[in-house]
This record gives sequence, structure tokens and C-alpha cells, in this order.
Amino acid sequence: MRNLKFTVRYDGTEFNGWQTQPGYRTVQETFEKAVRAITCEPRIRANASGRTDAGVHALGQIVNFFTATRLDEATLVKAINAKLPDDVCVLDCTKVGQAFCASRDAVKKKYRYVINDSRIPDPFLRRYAWQPRRGVDPEPMQLAANALLGRHDFRSFETEWPNRMSSFRTISSVSVARHDETVRIEIEADGFLYNMMRSIAGTLYQIGRGYWPVGKMREVVEIQDRREAGITAPPQGLFLVKVTY
Amino acid sequence: MRNLKFTVRYDGTEFNGWQTQPGYRTVQETFEKAVRAITCEPRIRANASGRTDAGVHALGQIVNFFTATRLDEATLVKAINAKLPDDVCVLDCTKVGQAFCASRDAVKKKYRYVINDSRIPDPFLRRYAWQPRRGVDPEPMQLAANALLGRHDFRSFETEWPNRMSSFRTISSVSVARHDETVRIEIEADGFLYNMMRSIAGTLYQIGRGYWPVGKMREVVEIQDRREAGITAPPQGLFLVKVTY
Repeated sequence: MRNLKFTVRYDGTEFNGWQTQPGYRTVQETFEKAVRAITCEPRIRANASGRTDAGVHALGQIVNFFTATRLDEATLVKAINAKLPDDVCVLDCTKVGQAFCASRDAVKKKYRYVINDSRIPDPFLRRYAWQPRRGVDPEPMQLAANALLGRHDFRSFETEWPNRMSSFRTISSVSVARHDETVRIEIEADGFLYNMMRSIAGTLYQIGRGYWPVGKMREVVEIQDRREAGITAPPQGLFLVKVTY
Repeated sequence: MRNLKFTVRYDGTEFNGWQTQPGYRTVQETFEKAVRAITCEPRIRANASGRTDAGVHALGQIVNFFTATRLDEATLVKAINAKLPDDVCVLDCTKVGQAFCASRDAVKKKYRYVINDSRIPDPFLRRYAWQPRRGVDPEPMQLAANALLGRHDFRSFETEWPNRMSSFRTISSVSVARHDETVRIEIEADGFLYNMMRSIAGTLYQIGRGYWPVGKMREVVEIQDRREAGITAPPQGLFLVKVTY
């Protein structure tokens, strides 16, 4: 059995997230169905670096599974893509060691959150950005975001999720930058709590609007209370950019 | 009655083109419905610079209509946007002279055609680019496109459409340039024949693939025969960028 690692890209708009759920269209089920049609192995289970929620996108989700197929990696990419609908695709496939596990072995993940802050929301960005119809200033957002760097208890940015050992995470880089009519927040960390990226985005939005001072971000981290942070920003602005192993 | 000119932007994917047709969702009907709800003038008719086909997008379509409403221009933009669905919006509104007509007075139009030429089509571009799954070289495309400059009979690039006086048009600028995994063709002309931009894109594609030599474009123009040109490239790659008056 080969252990194969895939980079998978998807427009999350019409998916109910990564993880299979009866009665919903999910990326996992869509991907597994395409793979099973090619390998004729009905019990293949795709293991992703992590779940993404309904409406969240991935530029480079990482997935692995074991297979006995004799098809080589390049052929598998072509064959699986031919079976996939056009809102999800496989970018590449590489053979990895038997021990490799996409979820357990992820060392770092990078997420991007996109805010289209023009007063008139752009029709071409409605699926790929939050559109609050108000302008934000990326400079105070960047200053505030710097307070997130390092190892902290991020429970202020977590919504209910019992399934974790610790609420400490290490953020290794943060950037907030304008690209035309959007502001992009990018954060790389060794892991993210449930809805952490979206509640950080909601908090930075308050600061970018000038509703809250730059120093508020450090306070929110220190106080360890979800009620002090901003809203959980909507899913369509969120992209899983890259997973590092 | 004021004569008002609007810049309208739309993602054409879920519209059956600009022009109202019974039983279909069109931009014209959607726009008129929003306007009528605001002005309470049930007979308002929106006049666009030109029709766009099903699936074709507009970054800056120009539309005018006459209204007796007392609402000022800035208020109208806000109010109409509040009534419009999120795949169409009004960018601005200005009062123009009584004689202004968006269709008749257009002096130049600029269209863009986008080809996503990566071997694996990008899920985020499927609504906004043609995805032939083959690479094209923009350099010979630009050289070939230069033969289109000036005043020519463009009937080789026209599909059936009886509704025109002449098949001569003047192209004032052409450019073909790569932007990451897309190649953009931009053409500005005093007018476009039916499907002209899409058949030029289909012809340039053949040249960009190396199937046809650069000199083929001049031949196609001169021979005045639709069968000599390339295919009519699909609508999702086409954007009406700008209309000049």
C-alpha cells in the first residue's frame, strides 16, 4: 500500500465544509467519491490536515490516504481531477512514508482572511471576502495583530469546542495589508482553535474601523474571555493557504 | 425629469444576459425592479450601452433612464444597491443632459477576455475565465492581435446577427498579457460585432497554442469568412470593462 499526499484546492461556497456529514455536500465526500471511482477501493478514507467549516476555502489543503492502486502519481492527479466537480481540484500528489499523517504531522498552518471594505460591495468578491460595507485602516490592524505573535492562551478567540488538549498556540507570523479594495489578514501558527482566525478577524475589524484602540488586542488576549473579542467574521472571507510539515 | 447615468457591475454567471426575456433572470429586469421599487415609477426602462450575453460579466456597464424621483444621486446609489441582489451593484450615478443615450452615444468600448491556461483549472477562476487546460504563449498572441488594429471589416469574427448596418469597426488598442495563471486579452474599439470578442479570443488561443502561425490573424481578417477564424470562446471569460462617451 502506498501512502499518498495530495494538495487540494476548493472554492468552499457550495460545500458544507470538509468533513462528511449525511445529507450534505462536503469536500471530503466529494473527494473520496472521485478517488474511489479511480482506484476501485470503496473503503478509502481521506485524512485532511484539518477540517474547514462550511463556506471556507482552501488554496492548499493537504490530504493523505493509503491505496493499492498501480496508477502513478501524475496519472492519479489527472484521473481524479477528471472525476471532480469544478469547484475542487487536486494540484499535486506525492508518495510519502508509511508513517505520514496529514492531520497529526502538520507543523504550521497559514490562514488568510479577506475583507472587501469598499462602501459598495464588489459582486466579484461576494463569495471570497467579508463585505461589511465600511472602510478599515490596515495600519492599526497590523500594530494590534503584532500583539498576537508568540505563544499565548488564545481562548478569547475560541468558540465552543471541547475537542482539544490545550488552548495555547504559537503564532509565528501575522500580516495585515491592503490589496486594492481588500484588506488581507494572514496568520501562520502551529495550530488554530475553533473559529480562532475568524474571531481574530472580527476583532481586528473593530480596530481597523477605529472603534477600538490598538492596545485592545493585547487586553483581549490577556483577559481570556470570548466576550471581550470581536464577532466571529463570516466564513466566505477565510482561506486555508498552506500547511507545513 | 432627470436623465441619470449609472455605472453597473455584475457577475454574469447567474444571469441570462442583460436583456429582459420572459422566464429568465436577466440583469436588466433585476436592475429595473430595484429602481422601480425605489422611485415608484413602474414604467422605468433602463437603457444600457449594449447587451451582454448569458454568463458575460461587466465591470463597468453604463445604463441611463429618466426619472421624476426627488432622491439625489448619492441616495439613489445607496437605495438601489440595498434592493439589488449581491451579484449586481451600482457603482455611481450622475445627472446627464436630456439628450444622453447610453447605447447610441458610446464612442468606445473596452472588453477583456480571460484565459486560465494552467493544466489544472483553478476552482476560483471557473466562473471568471475560460479554462482550456492547456498553456498558451501571450507573445505570439500579442503579435497576431496587432493585425487587428485600425479600421477593418471584421465579419470573419461575427456570428449570425442581422441587426447591424455595417461590419466595419475600428480597434484602437489591443493587448495580451500574462497575470499569473491567466492570460488577459484586452481590446478597445468603437464597437463590437456579435460575438466578435469571443471569436477573436478563440482565434488568438489557436495562435497562443502554436497551432496557427502569427500571420494567420491577418489572413482571417482579410478573407472575411467566419469559418477561417477560431471557435467562439465561452462566455465566462468575457468582461465589459469600460464604456467611453
